[in-house]
Amino acid sequence: MPQGQPSVVPEDGLTTRQRRNRPLVLVHTGQGKGKSTAAFGLALRAWNQGWPVGVFQFVKSAKWKVGEERALTVLGATGEGGTVAWHKMGEGWSWVQRDSQLSNEEAAREGWEQVKRDLAAETYQLLVLDEFAYPLKWGWVDVEEVVAVLRDRPGTQHVVITGRDAPAALRDFADLVTDMTKVKHPMDAGQKGQRGIEW
Amino acid sequence: MPQGQPSVVPEDGLTTRQRRNRPLVLVHTGQGKGKSTAAFGLALRAWNQGWPVGVFQFVKSAKWKVGEERALTVLGATGEGGTVAWHKMGEGWSWVQRDSQLSNEEAAREGWEQVKRDLAAETYQLLVLDEFAYPLKWGWVDVEEVVAVLRDRPGTQHVVITGRDAPAALRDFADLVTDMTKVKHPMDAGQKGQRGIEW
Repeated sequence: MPQGQPSVVPEDGLTTRQRRNRPLVLVHTGQGKGKSTAAFGLALRAWNQGWPVGVFQFVKSAKWKVGEERALTVLGATGEGGTVAWHKMGEGWSWVQRDSQLSNEEAAREGWEQVKRDLAAETYQLLVLDEFAYPLKWGWVDVEEVVAVLRDRPGTQHVVITGRDAPAALRDFADLVTDMTKVKHPMDAGQKGQRGIEW
Repeated sequence: MPQGQPSVVPEDGLTTRQRRNRPLVLVHTGQGKGKSTAAFGLALRAWNQGWPVGVFQFVKSAKWKVGEERALTVLGATGEGGTVAWHKMGEGWSWVQRDSQLSNEEAAREGWEQVKRDLAAETYQLLVLDEFAYPLKWGWVDVEEVVAVLRDRPGTQHVVITGRDAPAALRDFADLVTDMTKVKHPMDAGQKGQRGIEW
């Protein structure tokens, strides 16, 4: 519930308007629930602004987040807000030939190559790189390259990256970092995930 | 990214199925960004399940979260998923007469009275009580009463409560508590909020 009063005014040579509209890199990390749901909640705001939204799901299972996927693609198709393009690693990226058998590592790298192409082309105004912290953590995608590409991206493209254990280099670079800290989770009490809540 | 393996199996006399479908109370609290956006992200999953979703915004300004409001009401109107009812304290609850001038405290209490009526009637399957932690913190609504009402609610109604400084009694009772911990926020660097990101 930010009140819009910055605590410091930086000496960066920017006007308030330039600074206000500066594109952001946001990181949702930590062990708790809400990292991805908050990213998709943010996509609702972007949709309402009429922005083209691109989602890249860096996860193995194609079944994850089917609720958000369906809701956001239905929203994008209404024509009442922005568009939504949803890309899933889990069933093979749509732009990769079906008969090419990529390892998870290769698939993650291929996803990042497409993100780079889309950043260069300014395809989207909000990019959600869901669970992208994992290939970074595992070294499948080089975090220094990611930071350099994000730093030099053109235009006003906001980027949200989710996942546990986001590397320090990414956290240091990001404009906003929230750590979703687990205080209590139903699975600690022996409860399994359920529809409508976990997917 | 929970893997569905509970760490403990409790001796509560419930079958796995009963335990799995147990309705949950979720609390998103802490100083960081993402409390409300994660709640609205969860609403996307509920919508996809075909659930009726009720949102109660316990905030003074009617302008907050207009992006999420528009997106979710558009989704609810498509007929392709659940319904969405959106109630705002900020412009006066819809069921309260326009010429009645309620104080914020009275309005918050009136909102809670309606939530109680809807819980008793099982109007919704997911209720988002956005920023409800504030009237609890300020003592406008009695947290012990809230816990008792939630504990005794009928059926399978999931309830998400957001806001900083959720009282201990609520945190103790909730099934899931995530603390959105602020690591870094653009306002710390002198940046104001911007459209598509903060609203």
